[in-house]
Amino acid sequence: MGSARANEDCLGWAARDESGVLSPCKFSRRAIGEDDVSIKITHCGVCYGDVIWTRNKRGNSKYPAVPGHEIAGIVKEIGSNVRGFKVGDHVGVGTYVNSCRDCHFSNDAIEVYCAKGVVGTFNCIDNDGTITRGGYSNYTVVHERYCYKIPDNYPLASAAPLFCAGITVYAPMMRYKMNQPGKSLGVIGLGGLGHMAVKFGKAFGLNFTVFSTSISKREEALSLLNADKFVISSDQQQMETLAGTLDFIIDAASGDHPFDPYMSLLKTAGVLVLVGFPTEVKVNPASLLLGMKTITGSAIGGTKDTREMINFCAAHKIYPEIEVIPIQYVNEALERMIKSDVKYRFVIDIENSLK
Amino acid sequence: MGSARANEDCLGWAARDESGVLSPCKFSRRAIGEDDVSIKITHCGVCYGDVIWTRNKRGNSKYPAVPGHEIAGIVKEIGSNVRGFKVGDHVGVGTYVNSCRDCHFSNDAIEVYCAKGVVGTFNCIDNDGTITRGGYSNYTVVHERYCYKIPDNYPLASAAPLFCAGITVYAPMMRYKMNQPGKSLGVIGLGGLGHMAVKFGKAFGLNFTVFSTSISKREEALSLLNADKFVISSDQQQMETLAGTLDFIIDAASGDHPFDPYMSLLKTAGVLVLVGFPTEVKVNPASLLLGMKTITGSAIGGTKDTREMINFCAAHKIYPEIEVIPIQYVNEALERMIKSDVKYRFVIDIENSLK
Repeated sequence: MGSARANEDCLGWAARDESGVLSPCKFSRRAIGEDDVSIKITHCGVCYGDVIWTRNKRGNSKYPAVPGHEIAGIVKEIGSNVRGFKVGDHVGVGTYVNSCRDCHFSNDAIEVYCAKGVVGTFNCIDNDGTITRGGYSNYTVVHERYCYKIPDNYPLASAAPLFCAGITVYAPMMRYKMNQPGKSLGVIGLGGLGHMAVKFGKAFGLNFTVFSTSISKREEALSLLNADKFVISSDQQQMETLAGTLDFIIDAASGDHPFDPYMSLLKTAGVLVLVGFPTEVKVNPASLLLGMKTITGSAIGGTKDTREMINFCAAHKIYPEIEVIPIQYVNEALERMIKSDVKYRFVIDIENSLK
Repeated sequence: MGSARANEDCLGWAARDESGVLSPCKFSRRAIGEDDVSIKITHCGVCYGDVIWTRNKRGNSKYPAVPGHEIAGIVKEIGSNVRGFKVGDHVGVGTYVNSCRDCHFSNDAIEVYCAKGVVGTFNCIDNDGTITRGGYSNYTVVHERYCYKIPDNYPLASAAPLFCAGITVYAPMMRYKMNQPGKSLGVIGLGGLGHMAVKFGKAFGLNFTVFSTSISKREEALSLLNADKFVISSDQQQMETLAGTLDFIIDAASGDHPFDPYMSLLKTAGVLVLVGFPTEVKVNPASLLLGMKTITGSAIGGTKDTREMINFCAAHKIYPEIEVIPIQYVNEALERMIKSDVKYRFVIDIENSLK
């Protein structure tokens, strides 16, 4: 990329600086190793992480930056040791593409918490020293461990967002046993993550309430997503009627918001799982002490949970709500996503638009 | 109390107003019911809760207020249905004396989280409509469910602080499986609660580090309490060497302090349990998200845990560090406790001084 190298056969879209404006580029992928799978990318979801690292929001962006970590595609070649996949398989890749494969987190298939640091799908230094580049590109090469089989009957475009938005809510829901029918779940923030929490909650048989700051989401929450209740979080009276009624809350809101009003809605021993990324989390100690309540965080999920999730989605016909776009629309899509103007996930049709 | 009633046979010390100054008083206890135990109080621990409600810090104090919820004594009479105790038994009473006995928390012996609200040992409205009065008094009457057998070989003076300070740290330590030998525990704040966490940690075979703002606690932490490490929390370099090394932290500091530095010391999936009562709990979301870390709260503990704890203390010869005082010293003791000038719990010798 930049230098003229013979094997720059991968087409992608990259940001070149902090403006984050994406434009076409060519770069090289590593040659397929014996444990690797080479994947023709057909679709890539658009995640807020793409904005963070193309615009250098964390101060660690490595330009040119090819974002994208919600990847779906078709296996086009496999290494000699690969046993889990064959050419033609539908597969996905999520937010990480390597880990030490030695620590107990790696061994427990929660590689995302790898003791030596997980290798993100883009903007990270891979184990071989190269910088990882993401799914806004026409193919990728990945160790089979970090690759997931997508059932044949599951649309590739719909599969893409599962590998970040989907697993980010699925993993903590399973960890905290939110899959017990009849339990009550609250979901704060109805975006890419929140709407998946609602879909999983529905499939698990939960009684769920959607909290939003915007009345405009009411109709969709109740009819499209079949929420049991929709509550405007600023409506104190509505909030008070729910005091002490929820077993769990998934907090997928990335904007700043008070936490105490939500903590008061939890039953004794209730758990709020943070999956969004506000500026700070601030609570009155009484919100934790008086009812042994918990605030916990969760990031993505391990490979075992991810495999389980995609199969669960196929079995229960759970599909993210998506807006499919050509790669040429991606800069506008990023702007719209920042304004929450998407229902609920953009997915880039790589196969038909990146040529 | 105030009115001249025939059965005002209970001697106590009460605060009359927000000054919180305690002075002698007489009042009546209920007649012993068929499930009740009447207890001659020999000792009562001095807890910060006594300051809170004698000085109306929560705006709900009911004067005259007789504080004290770390009670130890000897059974002097039992009701006709009482099966668990006999006259002469050494017993304790903790922070609550009633609950609905019907909700699932009551049924699970975690009555402190009673769905209808637990009845505190003082300053609360009991199920019969009377205001509860605590252990700064020469006897009390309590339903046997909320009374704990103290093994004969365990000193009554030492037992008293177990029923608040002890159980408050023991219950979450058990709930979060901090009793697994070899695990690493951090304890923030070396006061009445913190020093008990260290003693339990030692008995559980944990590797533990004491965090304090005061170098003056170093010697005692290391030699008297046998801490493995002592760290001044303002020493950034010392703190950094511990990054990612702790399985659990018990936060018993009631003063305000930052949480992020401590969260960074936790391993992946580590848990900080709040048992102190600072003004607020504020963390960066990354402190929770990047490592599925948890902040949780805990208040006191249920009757089952309390019984288990007192037996554990007797079996392992775990004794709180106490300073025994006469009731006449109590106002000075409260002032000293506010200034953390006590190692580590005042216990009032009721039997020999309240006459």
